[in-house]
Amino acid sequence: MSVSSIHYLSKIFQPVTVISKTASISRKDVTSKSQRLMLELGIIRQSSPGFFHFLPLGIKSLNKLKKIVNQEMNNVGGQNVLCPSLINCNLWKTSGRLENAGPELFQLKDRHRHSYVLSPTHEEAISDLISSVSPLSYKQFPLRLYQISSKYRDEIKPRFGLMRGREFVMKDMYTFDTDIESAKQTYDLLCESYNNIFKKVGVDFIKVLGTTGNIGGSVSHEFHFKAEIGEDKVLFCHNCNYSGNLDLCNNEKCPVCGEEKQIDISNCIEVGHTFLLGDKYSKPLKATFLSKDNKPVALQMGCFGLGLSRILAASVEVLSLEQEIRWPDVLAPYNVVIIPPKMGSKEEQDTKHVAEILYTRLESAIPHLTDNVLVDDRLSLTIGRRHLDARRVGYRYVIVINKKASESVPLFELNDIKTNGQLYLSENELISFIKDNTVL
Amino acid sequence: MSVSSIHYLSKIFQPVTVISKTASISRKDVTSKSQRLMLELGIIRQSSPGFFHFLPLGIKSLNKLKKIVNQEMNNVGGQNVLCPSLINCNLWKTSGRLENAGPELFQLKDRHRHSYVLSPTHEEAISDLISSVSPLSYKQFPLRLYQISSKYRDEIKPRFGLMRGREFVMKDMYTFDTDIESAKQTYDLLCESYNNIFKKVGVDFIKVLGTTGNIGGSVSHEFHFKAEIGEDKVLFCHNCNYSGNLDLCNNEKCPVCGEEKQIDISNCIEVGHTFLLGDKYSKPLKATFLSKDNKPVALQMGCFGLGLSRILAASVEVLSLEQEIRWPDVLAPYNVVIIPPKMGSKEEQDTKHVAEILYTRLESAIPHLTDNVLVDDRLSLTIGRRHLDARRVGYRYVIVINKKASESVPLFELNDIKTNGQLYLSENELISFIKDNTVL
Repeated sequence: MSVSSIHYLSKIFQPVTVISKTASISRKDVTSKSQRLMLELGIIRQSSPGFFHFLPLGIKSLNKLKKIVNQEMNNVGGQNVLCPSLINCNLWKTSGRLENAGPELFQLKDRHRHSYVLSPTHEEAISDLISSVSPLSYKQFPLRLYQISSKYRDEIKPRFGLMRGREFVMKDMYTFDTDIESAKQTYDLLCESYNNIFKKVGVDFIKVLGTTGNIGGSVSHEFHFKAEIGEDKVLFCHNCNYSGNLDLCNNEKCPVCGEEKQIDISNCIEVGHTFLLGDKYSKPLKATFLSKDNKPVALQMGCFGLGLSRILAASVEVLSLEQEIRWPDVLAPYNVVIIPPKMGSKEEQDTKHVAEILYTRLESAIPHLTDNVLVDDRLSLTIGRRHLDARRVGYRYVIVINKKASESVPLFELNDIKTNGQLYLSENELISFIKDNTVL
Repeated sequence: MSVSSIHYLSKIFQPVTVISKTASISRKDVTSKSQRLMLELGIIRQSSPGFFHFLPLGIKSLNKLKKIVNQEMNNVGGQNVLCPSLINCNLWKTSGRLENAGPELFQLKDRHRHSYVLSPTHEEAISDLISSVSPLSYKQFPLRLYQISSKYRDEIKPRFGLMRGREFVMKDMYTFDTDIESAKQTYDLLCESYNNIFKKVGVDFIKVLGTTGNIGGSVSHEFHFKAEIGEDKVLFCHNCNYSGNLDLCNNEKCPVCGEEKQIDISNCIEVGHTFLLGDKYSKPLKATFLSKDNKPVALQMGCFGLGLSRILAASVEVLSLEQEIRWPDVLAPYNVVIIPPKMGSKEEQDTKHVAEILYTRLESAIPHLTDNVLVDDRLSLTIGRRHLDARRVGYRYVIVINKKASESVPLFELNDIKTNGQLYLSENELISFIKDNTVL
């Protein structure tokens, strides 16, 4: 490993801001803890209301989430595609969604005065794709196509940063089966796959009965993180174990057993949504297959959305302290920060290159740490200040190189910000500790 | 390696079409060889004029190109970001670009009647980002930010498929330096980096003096693939070795030495464009740094575009035969196809699992082949038909398992479609051959 591949903090574009009433981002626009922390610590930056730049640390985190999602989608036979964002309005007319879409749907006219939708989801586009390649034989199903791309929704009141933006990164899968029974199996498989994804992310989640809203279909489930600022309310009934979006319930009663008292109602952030669509889109848009007796039959569809940018923000919202980000280990931009001594100190003289050597050894010994270790080379700052910065950005392991690192058996100060533990460990012990305590 | 990870052709969504006058895509809409081949062979699919779906094989190829580009951008200190596609029109007014933009610029109004641009490039957005985090110290430069994302241009006449679409995938980098001299160094570094990218892609390219057009700036270079359908014309002068876009020349004369005869004029496809921008955007948008004497000074910018979806199409255009796609090795969706015997044949009985075993050995012996080997499991089709299909889609190595594979020393038929060679090789020889002849 060459020295040039070492990630140095000073080389990262991470504009740290203090959000005040006078700054370009004023405090009144900041409506959640995660939004404030992600803005202040240079993870994201607002461009216009509801529109954000992902800065390098934000992209790193987003890419980790994409990788987890891609793996899981492949595991269930998902095939990656990419639909254009601009979709001819006629498809939305055909599905009947255009007239009910309302002002949340961004629309534009091209130079020939043809109308296009800037897509929030792609049911019509993908149904039309299948229709255009028909007739497909029943043997070619199930078919599971997914994409990860930017989606658009003109929120009347964008808020909470990435959580309710007007442009956001979503994973959307569309499934096609030849009958209702197999469509249900696909649906269950995908719900299970969402369980796996959220388990990997490591933030507590709940799966509840969902509303079908503008997308439609017969069955729907929502995946939520519990959080005070959550805009959805979820009812859980201790009597019959029912759980569902409160919008499905009358008068805060359990809709199954009627229980009114032994219920919990929690604020939640919706991070995933699954729909069993039936032929709502396939029928009008003619997404058909050829049955065994050679007749065209409308396909049974499902759609499965995951708000990737929202999952990042919601994870930060749920896990963070008031002044310090906490990430899920698997989504943190970096997992380990090494802090060498301050410039001009005696320790600096005694520990030349120790940070770089340790960096290389960590990456060699723990392959998952490749590109996940950072050296805070801002040597003009005290160790204390850099330690504080590392805690604020939420790097799990902060390794301080101090005078014990120049002793005959060098020891490193390892701080685990998740457990608030501090240990002095030899290099081998350090490597073992991080290896044993991190799932990446 | 588990058997479940084997890539089977029958599981890939690859709708093969014959483009006829009656099909939904009519022959008149197909204006180039690459567009026809990529549509017919299920690599892409048109959604609306100038808008395309990337199908699974197209995504695989696109992802390979992204990986090459990401690596090169990291090598030159590029930091990955992601800007929103919708950018407030006011920024484009400030830069002066809005009034000259013309109908190629997609625009829309949000529900509050605010105007947004659906960005073709992000000079304004990124300058505004830097402005919003000012003041940055001169010590924080050079700064090189890039993204890979969908871009939009309302072409009056979209054509040649991905080559001139209205929504396309682009890599755009924006660089910031504190003075003209260092901005020039950055510019040269990035041109060199583009050389590396195109060398890796492996299609012959030329770098010529470019026009600055709507983007502006003082110096510009274009990277081109030579191709008959190319819409740019490039002049090369054998007298003084000048090369430049013909738009820079008067009357088909070399603009440097005036030569009229010893010149070549070639049709070219522009695949990359670099600009030394100076302070065209940084000045009006206030992207400044604090100089050593603590004064705000406008940054010197450069911008560097690569049309990723266009590079795919242009490579296919340049390399392909009339009826068969040829990919650059590094961009082919798969590199090796294994064709087991037809169902019910004697060979099928004698070579059970041989395809799967060979698959696993190839991937173990040649790590770069991971996810790049395909088994054509359409066993109801003859070997000949599948061989032909593999050639048409352009998979470099076609391995046929026939009766020689069940001899005491099993031999495999290896077809190299690049050299049109056919060899019978033992497993070890086969692995060595592919290892030695492929750069991935």
